[in-house]
Amino acid sequence: MAKKPTDETKGIQAKDRYFLHPWEDVTSIGAEARTVIAKGDGIHITDSDGNRLIDGPGGMWCVNVGHGREEIVEAVAAQMRDLTYFSPWSATAPPAAILAERLAGLAPGDLNNVFFTTGGSTAVDSALRFAFFYNNCLGRPDKKHIISRVGAYHGSTHLAASCSGKMLEKANMDMDEDRVHLIPNPNPALRPASMSLEDICDQKVADLENKILELGPDKVAAFIAEPVLASGGVIIPPEGYYRRCHELCRKHDVLFIADEVVTAFGRLGHYFASRDVFGVEPDMLTTAKGLTSGYVPMGALFISDRLMADIKAAGNEPKGFFSGFTYSGHPVAAAAALANLDIFERDALLEHVRNVAPHFEKRLQELADLPMVRDIRVKGLMAGVECCLNPEEPDDERDMNFLLEVDEICQDNGLLLRPVYSSAVLSPPLTITTTQIDALVGILKQGLETAWERRISGPL
Amino acid sequence: MAKKPTDETKGIQAKDRYFLHPWEDVTSIGAEARTVIAKGDGIHITDSDGNRLIDGPGGMWCVNVGHGREEIVEAVAAQMRDLTYFSPWSATAPPAAILAERLAGLAPGDLNNVFFTTGGSTAVDSALRFAFFYNNCLGRPDKKHIISRVGAYHGSTHLAASCSGKMLEKANMDMDEDRVHLIPNPNPALRPASMSLEDICDQKVADLENKILELGPDKVAAFIAEPVLASGGVIIPPEGYYRRCHELCRKHDVLFIADEVVTAFGRLGHYFASRDVFGVEPDMLTTAKGLTSGYVPMGALFISDRLMADIKAAGNEPKGFFSGFTYSGHPVAAAAALANLDIFERDALLEHVRNVAPHFEKRLQELADLPMVRDIRVKGLMAGVECCLNPEEPDDERDMNFLLEVDEICQDNGLLLRPVYSSAVLSPPLTITTTQIDALVGILKQGLETAWERRISGPL
Repeated sequence: MAKKPTDETKGIQAKDRYFLHPWEDVTSIGAEARTVIAKGDGIHITDSDGNRLIDGPGGMWCVNVGHGREEIVEAVAAQMRDLTYFSPWSATAPPAAILAERLAGLAPGDLNNVFFTTGGSTAVDSALRFAFFYNNCLGRPDKKHIISRVGAYHGSTHLAASCSGKMLEKANMDMDEDRVHLIPNPNPALRPASMSLEDICDQKVADLENKILELGPDKVAAFIAEPVLASGGVIIPPEGYYRRCHELCRKHDVLFIADEVVTAFGRLGHYFASRDVFGVEPDMLTTAKGLTSGYVPMGALFISDRLMADIKAAGNEPKGFFSGFTYSGHPVAAAAALANLDIFERDALLEHVRNVAPHFEKRLQELADLPMVRDIRVKGLMAGVECCLNPEEPDDERDMNFLLEVDEICQDNGLLLRPVYSSAVLSPPLTITTTQIDALVGILKQGLETAWERRISGPL
Repeated sequence: MAKKPTDETKGIQAKDRYFLHPWEDVTSIGAEARTVIAKGDGIHITDSDGNRLIDGPGGMWCVNVGHGREEIVEAVAAQMRDLTYFSPWSATAPPAAILAERLAGLAPGDLNNVFFTTGGSTAVDSALRFAFFYNNCLGRPDKKHIISRVGAYHGSTHLAASCSGKMLEKANMDMDEDRVHLIPNPNPALRPASMSLEDICDQKVADLENKILELGPDKVAAFIAEPVLASGGVIIPPEGYYRRCHELCRKHDVLFIADEVVTAFGRLGHYFASRDVFGVEPDMLTTAKGLTSGYVPMGALFISDRLMADIKAAGNEPKGFFSGFTYSGHPVAAAAALANLDIFERDALLEHVRNVAPHFEKRLQELADLPMVRDIRVKGLMAGVECCLNPEEPDDERDMNFLLEVDEICQDNGLLLRPVYSSAVLSPPLTITTTQIDALVGILKQGLETAWERRISGPL
């Protein structure tokens, strides 16, 4: 059971009133006493009252090599003692150049141009800006529309957020509705009972082509897609969907932007999932999170040589991509990323993920028999366990509240969850062992059962 | 004189081909052999060939406490050993909460809500998103237009870049022209010779009011302004301008967003310049750079209690600001920021800036007699030295090339400059001493004279 909050914890919580958190309800600032996370080691975090928890969401899909890796601390400290900052406009620095070459070598196809950013949102925003720039350079100023999907999440700049399709999170938030168009959620679980997986795949691919044709291929700049829709609740589109969407984009001369902020760097057992899992070599690819395992903020957009060649072929006058950040290629972030990649190599982390992922899936699928579990989606080391208390009378708010209760019980028992709508989302550090997976699933099962018992002994 | 590039330097430059730099000309990727920065200490950086240079631009207006501060390295390493990441959605962590409270205590007026971002661009983008959100919450969905200025720079997300008024850097880049409107550059040097400073101030303030009235006050959400237009070339608007713009915004119920990404944290001798230098308490204020002295990427948007109260008064139902970043309140960045503020306090850095700034200005103003110097603008420890080879036949490209040549000569003599159009921009680390200022100005003077001599002995 959880310990009582100490005075130190209460002191931090009082100061926390000044920290406006992401997604915070601004009408109740300071009302929430958040858990204070104080320590991290391996797959665990420890709060300021000494409660040790399995980090179910792996930070926020990001602590891929696990917490407390001394190698990264040492690399960061060494880099900071040499150089903490240089201006990427005029100069370069060894860690940034070395990282760029190393990443280009790992990335699929001809994605050889690494544009460093400060995280996933700025990587997506930069990709979209590059798509506009590309078409301007090619003399196609009207080819600017962007297609994205309901259920997608692409970040928190105005333009990146406009591509996000988490509809509950758009209330009071303005979107760029002139440029960005959402097609339906590709979740195959939403199909009618009579429809086959092949048919839903056809339909979801047709959604994309219909939207391209409706807008006009000469008006559509890009389609942006996560291979697995992560923050949407780990939505796994039907087999073949991603590859066929890519083919459609090629057919209609639409750029295919793979948003691998979550899936790159091992989450699905490969550095990049687009090619190795889904058979696609995208035109642009966005990353962040696992790039540094979240130790220092960094993102990266990869742009293909083909696009650069197209721009050059369109005219030899200089064409500056007038975009970039003070912290593009930050040497400390780059040093963290390099040490992170060293750990991937030395510990054979990709192979480890491919080895334990089937166990992760098998153990989670055992929860399917629980009465409140509606759907279990697992790919690599990411999963969504969706709950519905009464399928005959669905009630999103009731199910979301149920998940919050499950999270509370799990936290008391040593597991931090991440409730996303009515799903418990899991993306533990990639270092997780089969024994630790058993512990995680055991606590989750007990949380679901306990919360369920409370509900059926009271009003639903 | 500069040493010959070593093989090691050439090796890094070869890898650098994969690093797509900010503002890079994409038709000549890999053609440029950039200076490789390897070390930093105090106000100096050292390139990979051993050349030691005064860091004239202070990184990119950011290395405020100087390079190589062991206190920050230690604080970062200690924090990384405890905790490198927590999810700011669900939890908090001591460094983030402590930093938020400390910053709110330093910020002017009631700017007590600290929304952490990954840098200046995301701080500005978030401020604009909050302005939209605010008006939606208040039932004013049409009050969404943004006013900015020619000469301004506000960052590199699509929306932040749309507010930037550096016109040469908009070629091939799309802007949000429906929402964002630019009023003329407030540079008093652009006034006719017959016009007084008072009259140009009246005119520049009138530019803002005319634009508000033209769009309609019920349509204008915000005016965003740097107190000194930094990347525009250190443009200092006429005395009283900033305060009068703020009064106008209050009069017309338009939010005043102070972009202090450059000016906060000591550049003008105060933590925040808006109140202490210009007498303004803004509704929102954006920072980055000096917040961590660039050691770890971080930005912060400050939002006033007044805006939060307005939203609450508009209705008690929950209103989530659905925005934020994986790296909002990153514990390692927050630890760097706290150690950075400790240095400001312990070394009395603000007082130091106020002490040496008059010497910085006096020495730079001595350059006014040089034949190619057109204008010298100095405020605190930021300066722009504008050159024009032939005022009777102005030629921007010629003058820009002249500045590039000055930069090259200065680098050979131990000073890194930052040419911005036809100005040499300076923003050295705030720790610079009067002796070091003398050295800096001496090298700059020699660079200007040498480049000038080469020009007058050849074709202009």
